[in-house]
Amino acid sequence: MTSTKKTLKEAERRSPCPVACTLDILGDRWTLLVIRDLVLGRSRFKDFTASPEGIPTNILSDRLERLQTHGIITQITPPDGSKHRAYQLTTKGESLRPILAAMRDWGLTWEKGTKVLMQPAPPATSATNPKKK
Amino acid sequence: MTSTKKTLKEAERRSPCPVACTLDILGDRWTLLVIRDLVLGRSRFKDFTASPEGIPTNILSDRLERLQTHGIITQITPPDGSKHRAYQLTTKGESLRPILAAMRDWGLTWEKGTKVLMQPAPPATSATNPKKK
Repeated sequence: MTSTKKTLKEAERRSPCPVACTLDILGDRWTLLVIRDLVLGRSRFKDFTASPEGIPTNILSDRLERLQTHGIITQITPPDGSKHRAYQLTTKGESLRPILAAMRDWGLTWEKGTKVLMQPAPPATSATNPKKK
Repeated sequence: MTSTKKTLKEAERRSPCPVACTLDILGDRWTLLVIRDLVLGRSRFKDFTASPEGIPTNILSDRLERLQTHGIITQITPPDGSKHRAYQLTTKGESLRPILAAMRDWGLTWEKGTKVLMQPAPPATSATNPKKK
């Protein structure tokens, strides 16, 4: 089911520039908000949809699939033991924290009225390099 | 001509989260590549279109307009004295460098074959707070 592709192929890239390549994967209005939610400790589909931005469920499904394909998140057994799907960041995904932090700092500095409502959770202890569950 | 709006109004925001607000302005595949080009010392419309990613001119025009509206870039007299339009980062725009650096580092670490082709130029000495030229 899950693609094993963990890195963009050359033909899929616009250039070898690491910024462009990062944007090929994450460059939209929603993907980094899903990463933000995971960093804040949310893990289940319905947790993501409950965030204040109101991500549409079809977009959320697409982004979760893409993030798994790129080895940025992995499926886990939900904390409550239910059968709902849950996700956590891999080591590759945890490495996105500096990008989020830089965006947070820029927003707080330059966009009036923005505020941090929750503090990031510590990295999941079981964060691993990308692999299929 | 140029809007004086320098910050997103509350009604235009998806939430008060500074990450979401930053993505409301910059969250797409192209905008941060224009910022990258400015950081690399490029300043004219044709310089941006010459970058390897091949930004479509209609998208470039839209992004330059948006970046001006948000006080991230400002028009300047071109270095060669020609009548072509040129741009430079404001202080607000220069403050995006940490986001670019974090994306560059993530791409270099996790996406095989990416490479830095040019080093950033120093900040423009005349970078100012957002204002109309």
